[in-house]
Amino acid sequence: MKIVVIGASGTVGRAVADELGRGDTHEIVRVGRTRGDYQVDITDTDSVSALFEKIGRVDAIVSATGSLFFGPVSKMTAADFNVGLQDKLLGQIRLALVGQHYLNDGGSITLTTGILADEPIAQGANATAVNAGIEGFVRAAAFELERGIRINVVSPTVLTESLDVFGSFFAGFESVPAARAAMAYRRSVEGIQSGRVYRVGY
Amino acid sequence: MKIVVIGASGTVGRAVADELGRGDTHEIVRVGRTRGDYQVDITDTDSVSALFEKIGRVDAIVSATGSLFFGPVSKMTAADFNVGLQDKLLGQIRLALVGQHYLNDGGSITLTTGILADEPIAQGANATAVNAGIEGFVRAAAFELERGIRINVVSPTVLTESLDVFGSFFAGFESVPAARAAMAYRRSVEGIQSGRVYRVGY
Ligand SMILES: NC(=O)c1ccc[n+]([C@@H]2O[C@H](COP(=O)([O-])OP(=O)(O)OC[C@H]3O[C@@H](n4cnc5c(N)ncnc54)[C@H](OP(=O)(O)O)[C@@H]3O)[C@@H](O)[C@H]2O)c1
Ligand SMILES: NC(=O)c1ccc[n+]([C@@H]2O[C@H](COP(=O)([O-])OP(=O)(O)OC[C@H]3O[C@@H](n4cnc5c(N)ncnc54)[C@H](OP(=O)(O)O)[C@@H]3O)[C@@H](O)[C@H]2O)c1
Repeated sequence: MKIVVIGASGTVGRAVADELGRGDTHEIVRVGRTRGDYQVDITDTDSVSALFEKIGRVDAIVSATGSLFFGPVSKMTAADFNVGLQDKLLGQIRLALVGQHYLNDGGSITLTTGILADEPIAQGANATAVNAGIEGFVRAAAFELERGIRINVVSPTVLTESLDVFGSFFAGFESVPAARAAMAYRRSVEGIQSGRVYRVGY
Repeated sequence: MKIVVIGASGTVGRAVADELGRGDTHEIVRVGRTRGDYQVDITDTDSVSALFEKIGRVDAIVSATGSLFFGPVSKMTAADFNVGLQDKLLGQIRLALVGQHYLNDGGSITLTTGILADEPIAQGANATAVNAGIEGFVRAAAFELERGIRINVVSPTVLTESLDVFGSFFAGFESVPAARAAMAYRRSVEGIQSGRVYRVGY
């Protein structure tokens, strides 16, 4: 399969690209905002369209990217909240909406949420809402996508590799290595299910 | 209690305002975009701030408003999808974020989603995502709100009064009268729970 991984230079995406690239069964196209084989800005429709025009038809689209707003509800503004809506939520959904037209029959789309969808933490209201919204989109879009195209989400707990950076937000949460989260992306890409949330580590 | 109902001229909101207004226990402030005691545009932060500045402190904020985008995933654009994000999702969350500062201690916020959060229909991917996102926000914000302020969602099935307009989207769904959905808003406003989704009719 030809698989495009958006966010392939990130903590999650690097592990996903490595996992899917093992054994040379698949051709992996690595995409980032500044790094990788191609660059894209998921918040910009023209940029996403241009990316797929350059890459051409693929068998799987994997997104492991998207920014959120973190901060207390008591100080949060609607503009703050819109950060996560425009970036992680609409950015990934844009990849799905544009990307569906570049997928071969029977292809797949795999998006990324995270444990905060189900487990709120302090300052994480935007994350919980955004992740839940993405999972809602996937639940519904799975029934509408044409030509046998499937769509799933992977929702990992905090990664062991990320504990240094934001482990303090996740007191008492178990972490998983990125390599373990990456297996769920393979399950989504090579499996038959659609509309699924693959929760990893919780 | 002094209760502000946003969307009070709508099918849901009228029933809610009537239910909460029965018996004169509460003072109801009816707000719409063009009708009611006050006008507001939930997509505009200045407009929402101005509304609460005019009304002053309240004991409960009830939102029964918000527009969505309906259309097939195969033709949907990111701009289409953003309609529901900016209106029903961010609009209601804006009411919560701004409104929290105008609530008396122990006050409450009640937002509105709908059955599409849980039950996808054709052309409803934006609705499912938006409703799920709102429910995610409520789930998380409930743990952060200060001064005993609570937050809940009411998620009704299609209303009997709305079947004429969009019953064809809801083939085989049972409907409920708006008056029955309105009871759940009373439960949220007068109860003790927080972070709840009150599902009505499903
Ligand atoms: N890390 C965790 O513990 C964890 C756990 C659960 C869920 N998640 C979720 O997984 C996703 C990835 O997280 P991460 O920790 O791997 O992030 P990360 O290490 O910061 O990597 C972000 C990746 O996304 C790319 N990127 C950034 N902005 C972009 C844009 N506007 N358009 C296109 N690509 C963009 C970056 O490209 P460049 O390198 O080229 O700039 C990079 O490849 C996020 O949605 C996060 O919420 C993370
Ligand atoms: N009807 C149903 O069967 C049903 C079922 C489940 C969930 N819901 C949800 O319930 C909510 C209300 O639906 P509805 O059927 O009652 O709608 P509706 O009859 O169209 O009423 C909409 C209400 O919202 C107000 N409004 C519209 N745009 C606004 C804006 N930008 N800012 C502030 N107020 C605005 C309107 O004010 P004006 O009249 O002054 O213009 C009106 O009071 C929606 O979120 C809908 O998805 C409805």
